[in-house]
Amino acid sequence: MMKKLNESMLIDFYEFTMANGYFETSHKNDIVYFDLFFRKIPSNGGYAIMAGLESVIEYVLNLSFTPEDIEYLRSKNMFSEGFLQYLTDFKFSGDIYSVKEGTIIFPNEPIITVRANAVDAQLIETYLLLAINHQSLIATKASRIKYAAKDRMVIEMGARRAHGVSSANLGARAAYIGGADKTSNTIADRLFNVPATGTMAHSWVQMFDTEYESFKAYAELYPNAAIFLVDTYDTLRKGVPNAIKVIKEVLIPKGIEFYAIRIDSGDLTYLSKQARKLLDTAGLESCKIVASNALDEHLIHALISQGAPIDMFGVGERLITAKSEPVFGGVYKLAAVEKNGKITPKIKLSDNPEKMTVPHFKKLYRIYDKHTNHACADLLTVHDETIDETKPLTIFDPTHTWKKQTFTNYYVEALLKPIFIKGDLVYERPTLAEIRQHAQDQLNRIWEESKRFDFPHRYYVDLSDKLWNIRQDLILKHTHKNK
Amino acid sequence: MMKKLNESMLIDFYEFTMANGYFETSHKNDIVYFDLFFRKIPSNGGYAIMAGLESVIEYVLNLSFTPEDIEYLRSKNMFSEGFLQYLTDFKFSGDIYSVKEGTIIFPNEPIITVRANAVDAQLIETYLLLAINHQSLIATKASRIKYAAKDRMVIEMGARRAHGVSSANLGARAAYIGGADKTSNTIADRLFNVPATGTMAHSWVQMFDTEYESFKAYAELYPNAAIFLVDTYDTLRKGVPNAIKVIKEVLIPKGIEFYAIRIDSGDLTYLSKQARKLLDTAGLESCKIVASNALDEHLIHALISQGAPIDMFGVGERLITAKSEPVFGGVYKLAAVEKNGKITPKIKLSDNPEKMTVPHFKKLYRIYDKHTNHACADLLTVHDETIDETKPLTIFDPTHTWKKQTFTNYYVEALLKPIFIKGDLVYERPTLAEIRQHAQDQLNRIWEESKRFDFPHRYYVDLSDKLWNIRQDLILKHTHKNK
Repeated sequence: MMKKLNESMLIDFYEFTMANGYFETSHKNDIVYFDLFFRKIPSNGGYAIMAGLESVIEYVLNLSFTPEDIEYLRSKNMFSEGFLQYLTDFKFSGDIYSVKEGTIIFPNEPIITVRANAVDAQLIETYLLLAINHQSLIATKASRIKYAAKDRMVIEMGARRAHGVSSANLGARAAYIGGADKTSNTIADRLFNVPATGTMAHSWVQMFDTEYESFKAYAELYPNAAIFLVDTYDTLRKGVPNAIKVIKEVLIPKGIEFYAIRIDSGDLTYLSKQARKLLDTAGLESCKIVASNALDEHLIHALISQGAPIDMFGVGERLITAKSEPVFGGVYKLAAVEKNGKITPKIKLSDNPEKMTVPHFKKLYRIYDKHTNHACADLLTVHDETIDETKPLTIFDPTHTWKKQTFTNYYVEALLKPIFIKGDLVYERPTLAEIRQHAQDQLNRIWEESKRFDFPHRYYVDLSDKLWNIRQDLILKHTHKNK
Repeated sequence: MMKKLNESMLIDFYEFTMANGYFETSHKNDIVYFDLFFRKIPSNGGYAIMAGLESVIEYVLNLSFTPEDIEYLRSKNMFSEGFLQYLTDFKFSGDIYSVKEGTIIFPNEPIITVRANAVDAQLIETYLLLAINHQSLIATKASRIKYAAKDRMVIEMGARRAHGVSSANLGARAAYIGGADKTSNTIADRLFNVPATGTMAHSWVQMFDTEYESFKAYAELYPNAAIFLVDTYDTLRKGVPNAIKVIKEVLIPKGIEFYAIRIDSGDLTYLSKQARKLLDTAGLESCKIVASNALDEHLIHALISQGAPIDMFGVGERLITAKSEPVFGGVYKLAAVEKNGKITPKIKLSDNPEKMTVPHFKKLYRIYDKHTNHACADLLTVHDETIDETKPLTIFDPTHTWKKQTFTNYYVEALLKPIFIKGDLVYERPTLAEIRQHAQDQLNRIWEESKRFDFPHRYYVDLSDKLWNIRQDLILKHTHKNK
């Protein structure tokens, strides 16, 4: 007996208690700045891909509370009637800046900055993190898999191992952004126009008296989409010969040019090589080979290195769950508070130095080499700083400050775009195809060294002089005062 | 611009092509038997916990296709009008047997058996796998974490790192089934009555001029739910002393007896011990200590072994994503086909022997020791076999058949319960509290040896003589014939 879902209530309970607390104390009218950022690239990769903004936009546009939600909250005896009325009338009223979906992102830089009253900014924390963490994780993983597959097709087919409905659906969308070419999941095609495709399951083969009959029936029904699953009984002795027979008997006479076999178990290098020989010997050089079975970027890389003649990879559980590291550790931290027009930067120190935040309302610049158009480094500045591209730009590592780099022939791009201003959506939402193309363009503009799976080049995200000094002052202030 | 979701369409595209294929060939009226089972326990554990049946029931009850869904499918030019009409009028018409949610489950035994016409049985594959794989994964992980935490409270707080909305919501529900005591996620409380709770975020502390003021304001607002997050600036030198001050100034005078601190970074053993000393020295022996920060069963076990005086664990990303192994590899395989009342068992061999299936329409029995009430082994039989509990029962390992075991003082329980019969729901759905209690009872009836994290005792799932022989015959048949 599951009740109907109001996604608005996917909010950690403490967001409500804190929001009510701001509402009931002097902070009701404070304007706050929150940064959403992450600290570490999953699987020790060299870059990540931003995804999830579309979900964030939908959430913010639709965030509201039903009378039942309000009654539920009232029953907790923790919230003021004024606050509950505020929720009843809720409409997000703040500003949201975000990097575009498909943009390459790096640790410790804001992917999203929220400027809003304290209540509004706090309430959206849980969902923003959920959407960006999940979808960036999958887009990033997909881009690694596509990188390993080179120009071969990658089909996302993980729905059955996904962590629930949205993991499957939005995961298919994120995988497509990151570089997957197709999906097995029909709803992702329906909802987002991610092209859906499919082969056959073992059940199809088993349903018929013989494997041959099952292939024949399939080829007759779907001559334009015939991919024969050849490992139900014995890949090389039965599956491939039966596929060859049916291709020759049914498909070739119809003039069909696309057909393929799929291998889903056993040693994929050995079996694909042997299958290729059988197919070629039969004159079916154009028959494609699809491989699946717990594939990921490492296994695909190894198969290709070994010369496995695989044309398409079906990638399931290890993509849709980002199995090698299923957590994208985005966090949402207070960066500044504005009272009467004056912005006060805020920092969190923590007992883990790497958890220390970068304070203030910031801009995020990407520095490109004018010659190669490649991204060289990112620079965080205070919001009111500008960069004069006609002058040399020197940046330095925020921890090892003696490490400096000067750019002369460069240009910069401000990556945080206005999405909502005063609660109004001001962003023209790109299509999914445009987002995917943007990710591809972005990938072409980072160095190959950043795409290596092992010990990739570390891309620098530095702070401007002004921002570095503000941060240093805050660290000293908080480590010296005693309250 | 995301369109509205019809969850029914969360179906792998090949289910549609296969279903249309059955519809259009001689298999339209075949009755088929599919088993949903898994092959390996995540993280090399000794048992798993079944969860997700409630989602399956909701899905099956609501499975239907809108005119837009039909139009979408028609646009693919792959489906017959007869099939599209069948989908238009769709109502699941088969039988579903399932083990109850909260039941302990083991590899290679059916968790769900579907008996339906081939079309209906094939169409529900994707969602059944998705629901059971996801929720069993999280319930199992939660039970490991609760086992490590012993009698200490475990709070699921992973929403922000979940893989989308349903990962957060149904994940919270599954974690509760597995043993988590509370959740941070409000919607899980609203929907499923999983008790929601929360503390405060660093943003609350940063919002005030001093940490002390932030704690004081919180204690005054929520005297009955005061858990102070003490690591924003310096846990031992600032956070804990400020918490002590506020407890004494605000909470003790009100007669409040529950209050706690939360440590979210640094070395949790060291900090909890030092914090405990500070609290005890201040006379606050009753103040609880909550710990969080990338916890899982191994870290919790280590912290407790080291004597960390932690009373409650907040567990986030590593529970909600089952980080140590985020894939529960359930599969859905054809076990038999019934034509004109005659059931023909079906097998899938595969090039990986461990992927070979157990054929036929089966019963799943759990054998309990009458003296201890502990589960001793599971036994798969053909559907028409019964077990005479008055006689000794000898079982044998299906691979190493010389390994035998005989039970004399035992009783058996048939684990697969009818859920749907001829499309009608015949199962009385338990409450979530009952499911959670069932899981607890089940855990109490398996041996401690199965709960160990490293090299746990392997629980046996054996086949009856009759079933073993049928399987052996099928293996020989398929390895000897050439079509």
